[in-house]
Amino acid sequence: MDLNHIGEQAREAFLASATADSAVRVKTINKIAAGLEVQRAAIKAANERDVSAAMKAGLAPALIDRLTLTDARLDGLAADLRALAEMPDLLGETIERRTLANGLRIRRVRVPLGVMGVIYESRPNVTIDIAALSIKTGNAAILRGGKETIRSNKALVEIVHDALAAIGLPVNTVQFIPDPDRALVEGLLRLNRWVDVIIPRGGSALHEFCRDHATIPVITGGIGICHLFVDESADQDASLKLIFNAKTQRPSVCNSLDTLLVHEKIAGEFLPQVVAALATAGVSFRASPRAAAIVGGDAVQPAGPEDFDTEWLSLVLGLEVVPGLPEAVDHIARHSTHHSDGILTGEPENADRFVRSVDSSAVFVNASTRFNDGAQLGLGAEVAVSTQRLHARGPMGLPELSTYKWVVEGDYTVRE
Amino acid sequence: MDLNHIGEQAREAFLASATADSAVRVKTINKIAAGLEVQRAAIKAANERDVSAAMKAGLAPALIDRLTLTDARLDGLAADLRALAEMPDLLGETIERRTLANGLRIRRVRVPLGVMGVIYESRPNVTIDIAALSIKTGNAAILRGGKETIRSNKALVEIVHDALAAIGLPVNTVQFIPDPDRALVEGLLRLNRWVDVIIPRGGSALHEFCRDHATIPVITGGIGICHLFVDESADQDASLKLIFNAKTQRPSVCNSLDTLLVHEKIAGEFLPQVVAALATAGVSFRASPRAAAIVGGDAVQPAGPEDFDTEWLSLVLGLEVVPGLPEAVDHIARHSTHHSDGILTGEPENADRFVRSVDSSAVFVNASTRFNDGAQLGLGAEVAVSTQRLHARGPMGLPELSTYKWVVEGDYTVRE
Repeated sequence: MDLNHIGEQAREAFLASATADSAVRVKTINKIAAGLEVQRAAIKAANERDVSAAMKAGLAPALIDRLTLTDARLDGLAADLRALAEMPDLLGETIERRTLANGLRIRRVRVPLGVMGVIYESRPNVTIDIAALSIKTGNAAILRGGKETIRSNKALVEIVHDALAAIGLPVNTVQFIPDPDRALVEGLLRLNRWVDVIIPRGGSALHEFCRDHATIPVITGGIGICHLFVDESADQDASLKLIFNAKTQRPSVCNSLDTLLVHEKIAGEFLPQVVAALATAGVSFRASPRAAAIVGGDAVQPAGPEDFDTEWLSLVLGLEVVPGLPEAVDHIARHSTHHSDGILTGEPENADRFVRSVDSSAVFVNASTRFNDGAQLGLGAEVAVSTQRLHARGPMGLPELSTYKWVVEGDYTVRE
Repeated sequence: MDLNHIGEQAREAFLASATADSAVRVKTINKIAAGLEVQRAAIKAANERDVSAAMKAGLAPALIDRLTLTDARLDGLAADLRALAEMPDLLGETIERRTLANGLRIRRVRVPLGVMGVIYESRPNVTIDIAALSIKTGNAAILRGGKETIRSNKALVEIVHDALAAIGLPVNTVQFIPDPDRALVEGLLRLNRWVDVIIPRGGSALHEFCRDHATIPVITGGIGICHLFVDESADQDASLKLIFNAKTQRPSVCNSLDTLLVHEKIAGEFLPQVVAALATAGVSFRASPRAAAIVGGDAVQPAGPEDFDTEWLSLVLGLEVVPGLPEAVDHIARHSTHHSDGILTGEPENADRFVRSVDSSAVFVNASTRFNDGAQLGLGAEVAVSTQRLHARGPMGLPELSTYKWVVEGDYTVRE
């Protein structure tokens, strides 16, 4: 595969897509949604071949579940596309406008981000998701999905290409690398001549690989070591329910709770309630020496040296007792991945201090860390959750797939 | 040198600096300005040793000029600092605020960007400039300047550290790597555990080196292959003056003009005027076959195969004749570095078409490319000019040294 050629084609397609009318983009996305319905038999046949190959290869049931396209999932995808198509179009918007003393009229105008390299694992829904997001936002995308779903992805990309061609956008607005050769991923990561941003969608290993090998800015994220601090003034009953939610509602994702910090003044009363309530849901605990002095039993183990630096992604919760808010903030500064951290408190002043001092993509006051998510925060669509600080932080929606250009108009104005 | 230790110190200093009061930052910057005056003899003594070493090493006069700190330059630096200190402080500003149906109160709050790694060449003024910008914006900086100015930089950093200590900000808010070992630059570029962004300040080779070796997002820029297209409807007299300005006002910088594209309908009349007018300022020309058919003489050479992909940084100008606006746009798409490109026209409709179609950090209508500059566009301070698309594009001012965090407040709200 000639990656340089793919990159050049993406850039060409981008220049045409970026200036297409909003209505054309809307039509194309709706056409893809219709394609998912009309071509359902072909998609499912391709997907079944991926699934049976994965079973033969002995993939874990959770992974096989992720790569399976059921009727319900395809219906969901089509509905998501139609909702995305109707979202507001921000391109061309004037972000800022000024006139200078020398008469220059300056504005910053919103334009698409460019060519995105998107690298993801074996979730064929991401293929459709990113294709549609790219078309909606006037960007071009080069997709590289996991090798276990290559047949499904090919079938899905064909639907995308048919829709682009039918409505009249360049087919290369969305390109897919169908070759499973791993070297192509590294090649894509170094295609800085044509690609403007790399967006990994997957676990921490994928994010780190991209960051370490790319010569293009990478939107890293995906790792959440998340904390809640229960202040002495917190409503304990309500806190218990919230902690239960943050830990157990979906433990396998990055915004689930990893470590609970409890103020020492209430730890003796509150920690045993936490252990009793969460153990009923199968949670086990890793307790610091101070926490272990308060709670025990089958579900509680002493915390090992790495435990407070571990993203559990499962029904495990770290427990620590702290003398107060400054020590809670300090613990978070040392152990958080700056994804989602919060305080439970009855004191507005403590909430303010916590919010000012904790440097995470989302800081929560009396709310579950599970809300750090594009849909939950009302963004309509989520591209990624960023824990790096450049361009976008936390959940990224459609506006985060844009940038701006300066437009400077004069009357044959020269610099003195 | 233990770079990891430097990184950890920067992160710690950042957490304290980020939440310092605006008044403290203002005082610190003014204290540095005073230090430049009070410690002038020591600074100049250190700088003289750098200058004489550079002369002995046979550095080019232009480079020696850049590294020389005169009284006038130090006065200018101090004045710039005092102006910077008084600029508005944006930290803590609420960028966006919403309340969701479930009662969650969401806002995005402006916070500093983080720890910046700044790599630059032998310009000691950059040391003071970046130190003050970091302090003003609540960021921390790790500075790595050129080896030819290491003595000057040490003297300047001492003044910065004295000011930080005197006012009570962490001294490690600004750190300097005084070891000339080149391996330390590569180490800094891979310090993604602690450093959030790399900002190169220098020529294209430095930007490329950073991009190729960093595991941290790099604000690349610095390379400007800049175009002006003269439409058939342009005011030719006014265009001539503007082109003269864009090419000759300061040919050694990235926003100076490299290639002139002229509409074929006026090329026969206009190109000879361009050659005559600019030759008086010592400009020589590289003409395409179509341009060479119109103009000739001592100052005009045929353009070689690389000439339209060359940033001249000198009194050389490429000349091309195009059939019309679409071909001008196409030439720019193929040859521009997307820094500064413009149209000279009397037709508002052509201006609009050009502005929509040309994808550069700044697009000019009847204005000199030399205006792509933070001070000229009224930003007050310029950190860098970005030609990558993430986070900031074109000239970056103080707001571009910030990011945001999400603050989510509820009433013990859980996710359903």
